[in-house]
Amino acid sequence: MNFNKKLEKAIKKNNSLLCVGLDSDVDRLRESFGESRQFLFNKSIIEATKTHVCSYKLNTAFYEAIGHSGIKALKDTCDYLREKHPEIPLIIDAKRGDIGNTNDGYVQFVFTYLGGDAVTINPYFGEEAIRPFLNKKDKGIIVLCKTSNAGAGEIQDLVISNGMRDLVPTLRRDAYNASLDFSASPRNDMKLYQYIAYQVSHEWNKNKNCLLVVGAMYPNELKQVRKIVGQDMTLLIPGIGAQGGDLEATLKAGLNSRGRGLIINSSRNIVFAKNPREEAKKLRVEINKFC
Amino acid sequence: MNFNKKLEKAIKKNNSLLCVGLDSDVDRLRESFGESRQFLFNKSIIEATKTHVCSYKLNTAFYEAIGHSGIKALKDTCDYLREKHPEIPLIIDAKRGDIGNTNDGYVQFVFTYLGGDAVTINPYFGEEAIRPFLNKKDKGIIVLCKTSNAGAGEIQDLVISNGMRDLVPTLRRDAYNASLDFSASPRNDMKLYQYIAYQVSHEWNKNKNCLLVVGAMYPNELKQVRKIVGQDMTLLIPGIGAQGGDLEATLKAGLNSRGRGLIINSSRNIVFAKNPREEAKKLRVEINKFC
Repeated sequence: MNFNKKLEKAIKKNNSLLCVGLDSDVDRLRESFGESRQFLFNKSIIEATKTHVCSYKLNTAFYEAIGHSGIKALKDTCDYLREKHPEIPLIIDAKRGDIGNTNDGYVQFVFTYLGGDAVTINPYFGEEAIRPFLNKKDKGIIVLCKTSNAGAGEIQDLVISNGMRDLVPTLRRDAYNASLDFSASPRNDMKLYQYIAYQVSHEWNKNKNCLLVVGAMYPNELKQVRKIVGQDMTLLIPGIGAQGGDLEATLKAGLNSRGRGLIINSSRNIVFAKNPREEAKKLRVEINKFC
Repeated sequence: MNFNKKLEKAIKKNNSLLCVGLDSDVDRLRESFGESRQFLFNKSIIEATKTHVCSYKLNTAFYEAIGHSGIKALKDTCDYLREKHPEIPLIIDAKRGDIGNTNDGYVQFVFTYLGGDAVTINPYFGEEAIRPFLNKKDKGIIVLCKTSNAGAGEIQDLVISNGMRDLVPTLRRDAYNASLDFSASPRNDMKLYQYIAYQVSHEWNKNKNCLLVVGAMYPNELKQVRKIVGQDMTLLIPGIGAQGGDLEATLKAGLNSRGRGLIINSSRNIVFAKNPREEAKKLRVEINKFC
């Protein structure tokens, strides 16, 4: 079963668009958990939240922080999930990217060693370089588009002058025009994040396995991205909760015509809550009000 | 001692701009090395080449490929280098990047756990996000600019229409004009990789700890980058050897006025050569012909 189908099933089963990010920062974990504290913590969060999620996301930074034992905890968590809850998709938030064959190492890490269902990748190298990821037909390849940090615009909002003129040869200019709201930019230029959204959805997505990351801090940009990619592509949305993204604005801007097409991630606000189960349930219900 | 000083000393001691990339792809290593085969292989390469290099580079992809035991081999290699050859700078080619504090995990991995002297990072998130890296004053922060893959231009050569107009407010337009050769682009637009080079050298480099990656496949772009960043910034050049970069063109385009300012990396062509010592020596001597 490919990632999109597995995700669809999990969304339906738990009636949830919520992804819980297992950001088990060792500095915030109780010492009493001992050597395996990241794994044991994750296990407790998984058991508390498993009926309220459509997926789990593991950000590699929190595991790499302590080296090989952290990587082992990451693997133990993935093994546990695949064994006990094989129906829940597992997203490895690695934000990797390198040139051509070097990516084979990362592909092996994420899909063979960890057994992930999807991975986040960085688009800076271009499609040609990240083919080892894109070639994995059954996996979700989630490309960074507009990230959730305050300074994302420094690079991602750069206006590309030859965007419309040269870069979209395969699409009729009228059709492209109609698909975007360029009221602020009458010359029909596009921003880098829009170009990424366009390229990923129209060029990189030959195996229908691409998704995009758009931060919840940017509902206007999310709306643009939804217009560019159409109704079928799923968008992973970090930034709800601790980072301050607005849930209602996000859902209104990003849901597709079927009230789906988003994965809403929350990490710290759930995993470090007094009652992670209740927090996950609350957010799931809140999300469903707008679907 | 900061990274740039350590590098300068190593360059002087071995009279070398050569960096050997320890890309110890497990699939290419002899089974007879057993469990620690990546570490033992690296050790043998280090001992063979140590008098011919200015630095070693370890690409994390080749270690992550086999999971936590690969990460252990990576650490063992770093420990060995720091213990036996503490004068040789150690570059962790991780190409990492995430939002704000999440980068703390990667910073800990690269500098605390591995004890690296420098790291490669991806610029897509912008300066605000990667401050945890930039704040490490004594470390080298090597930002991807123009990567060595054939398809790098898809994103990195995008022309930024507001480049000159809005994005370079701190520099007088004339001075900027004079510093670049825009004969092909009379509107003084810049490409994304040029903008990255400009931002990193003029804005991100407050701690004088930034370097840039420019692939050897692109001597013309390297020339542009050298013009933008001036004489003091060191550039890491992958792509010589297996990837087919032209050494002479690269050195002519990228060396600064003192015949320095480049780290020339070669990986597979040296580490998988019949005689790595001779191969490293040959390339060092070849490089020095043009310095």
